[in-house]
Amino acid sequence: MRIVVLAGGIGGARFLRGLKQAVGPDSDITVVGNTGDDIHLFGLKVCPDLDTVMYTLGGGIHEEQGWGRADESFSIKAEMKEYGVGPEWFGLGDKDFATHIVRTQMLGAGYPLSAVTEALCARWQPGVRLIPMSDDRVETHVLIEEDGEKRAIHFQEYWVKLHATVDAKAIIPVGAETAKPAPGVLEAIAEADVIVFPPSNPVVSVGTILSVPGIRAAVAKAAAPVVGLSPIIGGSPVRGMADKVLEAVGVETSAAAVARHYGSRAASRSDSGKGGGGRREGLLDGWLVDSSDAGAVAEVEAAGIACRAVPLWMTDQDATAEMARAALALAEEVRGA
Amino acid sequence: MRIVVLAGGIGGARFLRGLKQAVGPDSDITVVGNTGDDIHLFGLKVCPDLDTVMYTLGGGIHEEQGWGRADESFSIKAEMKEYGVGPEWFGLGDKDFATHIVRTQMLGAGYPLSAVTEALCARWQPGVRLIPMSDDRVETHVLIEEDGEKRAIHFQEYWVKLHATVDAKAIIPVGAETAKPAPGVLEAIAEADVIVFPPSNPVVSVGTILSVPGIRAAVAKAAAPVVGLSPIIGGSPVRGMADKVLEAVGVETSAAAVARHYGSRAASRSDSGKGGGGRREGLLDGWLVDSSDAGAVAEVEAAGIACRAVPLWMTDQDATAEMARAALALAEEVRGA
Repeated sequence: MRIVVLAGGIGGARFLRGLKQAVGPDSDITVVGNTGDDIHLFGLKVCPDLDTVMYTLGGGIHEEQGWGRADESFSIKAEMKEYGVGPEWFGLGDKDFATHIVRTQMLGAGYPLSAVTEALCARWQPGVRLIPMSDDRVETHVLIEEDGEKRAIHFQEYWVKLHATVDAKAIIPVGAETAKPAPGVLEAIAEADVIVFPPSNPVVSVGTILSVPGIRAAVAKAAAPVVGLSPIIGGSPVRGMADKVLEAVGVETSAAAVARHYGSRAASRSDSGKGGGGRREGLLDGWLVDSSDAGAVAEVEAAGIACRAVPLWMTDQDATAEMARAALALAEEVRGA
Repeated sequence: MRIVVLAGGIGGARFLRGLKQAVGPDSDITVVGNTGDDIHLFGLKVCPDLDTVMYTLGGGIHEEQGWGRADESFSIKAEMKEYGVGPEWFGLGDKDFATHIVRTQMLGAGYPLSAVTEALCARWQPGVRLIPMSDDRVETHVLIEEDGEKRAIHFQEYWVKLHATVDAKAIIPVGAETAKPAPGVLEAIAEADVIVFPPSNPVVSVGTILSVPGIRAAVAKAAAPVVGLSPIIGGSPVRGMADKVLEAVGVETSAAAVARHYGSRAASRSDSGKGGGGRREGLLDGWLVDSSDAGAVAEVEAAGIACRAVPLWMTDQDATAEMARAALALAEEVRGA
């Protein structure tokens, strides 16, 4: 079974580990990774989401932290401070630096990010095919307002430096409009047996991937069922500060609202039959909400999306594998519906 | 007193530490550093000689090793091996990597190497003005012969990887012919009160600096006396493998032969009076040989270079300071001669 997952960082990576366990070693999983969080630091290209997936599935992740390398040291960070070179708010360890140095060297030699990612994965053997959403530079910026002045800042500055304590007025995937999907992305989506939206951030992770022209349309018209898992439980993000960026795009922080934000494929098909082509295409056939959000099932189904309530806390790998099984089961239910 | 020193790596750096001690805190020392050893590794610009001077005078050097940082870790090197990215033969520590990352970032932002070096020195406070010989890329290559095939390799590959175990057929400072002296180099030489050649490698350190068009001529016509210290004691290099590269340029490994290789300023002046302008200009007014080479004094003086035999082993900083005092005393002796 060919599974395609559109993944952000920590949530996506942990879900993928459960998915791998659920489907076993013969699985064929393609991960389309978000690169909108990418940032140039110290002249190096840093790809936080790709690396989180790669380290998590390759056994190198700092488990408690969820990002960065296990058994990490911070010599370079200390040196940078001595040199007075910032930013100090982004914590790169020495081992992690090595990844960025190799990546930057390969990019400088002319390899596209997708080829570089493949080369890095040759070491990590994540057990999935990891493809960046695009080889082109896309950087998510966040529009904030300070003292009445609007200012767009890099997503990492918003997320890591400001901890999303300031309201986001808009989320802008800079460069997305001219970006092309990386080689293999559209093919993988077209040939998939199942497409999964893991409980990643629907705006700055999955949303950014979908903002690359061609990817949203490919998902919308894919033959495979598309199922998602809610990153919102009981009105709060499972982790991170997704509520802040949902607010920026006018979406309530609830499992049902996120499903409606992704939209129903069935409803879109029926709309387009009625000539309602103006709306953007719906993407979901199925949606999982947490057991505690069972009350949202009816609302999601009313929107034209099959919905089930199951435990969605990724407390450990077994629990996560169970979530993945539930997603695949829902996909089978809705297949060809 | 304004002192200009043309310095390579370890030998030059240790001599400079002694010189600083000898002349005290009010000294005005300009170091013209060799950049022919520079190499691009992992996409980063590495300047071994500049860094050795900077770390040694700034208190960050690995004392026993003579290069690299004290209390160093090697996470990145281990990671590079995991990624299969070489070369493995060049040992860069994590702290050292930070220097190269900062340098590469600044170069990428458009700053010339001289400005970058100044910025790095703002942290290290070496107590001298350290200027690269040139802001232009010059790379010393070594012509070797393997299985009857001649091949030019980077100096670091010859020195660090091959440990100079292969004969050097020629030393080629690639790029030197079109390089310009960095801002301040010619001015410092012209305004110097004393010019010193420390016991650095006469071919691949001082020789490379002199290969930048304009620098040799500036030294030759400088108002200040020019004195040097022999890097050869008793027919062997004090450290390193200078004999291999001396052979490549047809110079015997002896204190006297190196002096004659640099040449006598007095003899050049007298030659040019006779219209013998075809030969390259001599540079030395004075030359120090080790006490054990006292027998060479007469030969050096016969070549038109004032020569004294004093202890030249840099066994500790006091001994090195004494060498520096001897060099300055010789400069006073020959001043205006």
